[in-house]
Amino acid sequence: MTPTIKTGDARQGSLARLSSRLGRPGVAAALVVALSLSATVARASDPLPSWNDTPSKKAIVAFVEKITRQGSGEFVPVPERIAVFDNDGTLWAEQPLYVQAFFLFDRIKALAPLNPGWKAREPFASVLGGDLKAALACGERKLMEAVMATHTGMTSQEFEKTVGAWIAGARHQKTRRLFTEMVYQPMIELLAYLRANGFKTFIVTGGGGEFVRPWAERVYGIPPEQVIGSTVKTKFVVRDGAPLLVRLPEMDFVDDKAGKPVGIQQHIGRRPIAAFGNSDGDHQMLQYTAAGGGARLCLLVHHDDGAREWAYDRHSHVGTLDKAWDEAMAKGWTVVSMKNDWNKVFPFDRK
Amino acid sequence: MTPTIKTGDARQGSLARLSSRLGRPGVAAALVVALSLSATVARASDPLPSWNDTPSKKAIVAFVEKITRQGSGEFVPVPERIAVFDNDGTLWAEQPLYVQAFFLFDRIKALAPLNPGWKAREPFASVLGGDLKAALACGERKLMEAVMATHTGMTSQEFEKTVGAWIAGARHQKTRRLFTEMVYQPMIELLAYLRANGFKTFIVTGGGGEFVRPWAERVYGIPPEQVIGSTVKTKFVVRDGAPLLVRLPEMDFVDDKAGKPVGIQQHIGRRPIAAFGNSDGDHQMLQYTAAGGGARLCLLVHHDDGAREWAYDRHSHVGTLDKAWDEAMAKGWTVVSMKNDWNKVFPFDRK
Repeated sequence: MTPTIKTGDARQGSLARLSSRLGRPGVAAALVVALSLSATVARASDPLPSWNDTPSKKAIVAFVEKITRQGSGEFVPVPERIAVFDNDGTLWAEQPLYVQAFFLFDRIKALAPLNPGWKAREPFASVLGGDLKAALACGERKLMEAVMATHTGMTSQEFEKTVGAWIAGARHQKTRRLFTEMVYQPMIELLAYLRANGFKTFIVTGGGGEFVRPWAERVYGIPPEQVIGSTVKTKFVVRDGAPLLVRLPEMDFVDDKAGKPVGIQQHIGRRPIAAFGNSDGDHQMLQYTAAGGGARLCLLVHHDDGAREWAYDRHSHVGTLDKAWDEAMAKGWTVVSMKNDWNKVFPFDRK
Repeated sequence: MTPTIKTGDARQGSLARLSSRLGRPGVAAALVVALSLSATVARASDPLPSWNDTPSKKAIVAFVEKITRQGSGEFVPVPERIAVFDNDGTLWAEQPLYVQAFFLFDRIKALAPLNPGWKAREPFASVLGGDLKAALACGERKLMEAVMATHTGMTSQEFEKTVGAWIAGARHQKTRRLFTEMVYQPMIELLAYLRANGFKTFIVTGGGGEFVRPWAERVYGIPPEQVIGSTVKTKFVVRDGAPLLVRLPEMDFVDDKAGKPVGIQQHIGRRPIAAFGNSDGDHQMLQYTAAGGGARLCLLVHHDDGAREWAYDRHSHVGTLDKAWDEAMAKGWTVVSMKNDWNKVFPFDRK
């Protein structure tokens, strides 16, 4: 049997033989310099530089190398390389609240002059009075009324413009960074790494798909047709000769928890081979991905870095990671420690 | 002003100058041979060989050249090159009935032994008795019951397998060709031509998306995530530890007529710049596409070739082309005459 030789060793060996045959120590020295230069280039071209060299990174790279190696037995053809990513808490920060909640509050404030009755109606009154805690305490039904009052009634195109204008300037209250800067640098690298290896990357978010689409291409490199999210009913109308799509005040589909695999089936129609989440909202998407035949990568981002981000898991008002955590432990899914596996969290962090 | 010279002329001119400068008639003759060879290559590499050189083909090529020419004022960046295609009657034949109707009838026959009650219940009884006309006369509500009885209750994966097995052998009653051979060769070429020019091609069908997905990649080169169709409600369940998607007997979304632009928005989230249809079921999709800013290609396939295919338009039991025809005439949309614009209809036709 031919012993397996690592590529680097083989190269070094043959170059050493070559230089010894040339018989000139100067050539050998030049080759050593050349080799160390090429090692530097190799390090510089690491597609995941914000990932420490820990088991999480190794699991990701091993999976990608395995499924892209022709004849490996676990090789996956390019069209089947589907990877799905949760958004809130997986690609960008979700603390102290989902970003879309801040959009909701700002829309309430912006539209209040046109809706004088809101001053006496919850959760509008609390939002307008600046008491977000009280607003959130109004419960899901009341909050959904506020979502419908601010997110529907306009055309899809108008809504897209409103989101686009808002996200261009909206900042996180603590860091004062744009929300679109509060994305995880290691995950941005992971998206690019997968795409460079023939993957189609999708966002599968519990939030509004049309809230994410206007900026996902610019920020994540993910085009609108690869964003799956919750939707409201939409109607086609011709108004004054202009064909329009109007957003109606009724939920169409909730793309969260058991909804995520359904959204994946309705949109993609093919089981992903890799899924990335951070909470119980992603549990079923991970289960569904894991249950396919062949190599699979199921990964949870664990928010354990209170210094650079936030530390939370089983008991949290957003991104609760409880059942999915237990299954990850039982099944050996990859759990990423933001603290230990990432040398950088946000793009603006210094290493 | 520099006069516009066609590429071919310019090349011939400069080569003639070159050969005259070389001053040897033999060289000039060799160049003439080389030129006629390259003209043959150019003809052979025509991306739309089944299209006659008529205004329809010219309109398609002019549109593609315009939107792909950097700095043309009508240039469209690659991510925005979205083209949507109806399926029945636009990409494959829909006479004497939509292909999915034959699938429905065959499923009724296959499942009849498990459903003894069907012998006394319409439209099942008529289908089992071989009277398809009577079955169709039972009306939409009864037919929808039969669709639900045969298309739901199983997992999405099982349904995919059933469709895949059926389509591998199902033949058209008149031509005895596989249904997947009854596709329009010029449209297959058009799909490939658009993709070669950076387009993402989508199917937007009134039929079941999960009826088209199992074979669309093989036949049209369109992956499942680019097939938008009518859907049934689907539920995620974990059964004996296995995560499954189960098709429920309830319509989720009807992707036809005014539903098509809605399906496009929910799935793609971006207005197409090119739309291809053949009936009033595609009218709103074409209107929505046409109403975007910038260059647009809106095209209707007109079934006017009773010899090679079928001849029908305003008054037909499938693929009625009435309102969309009038708007095409009024707005100058491209109307393809199958008879005059196509030198081949099906891949098996001889020119």
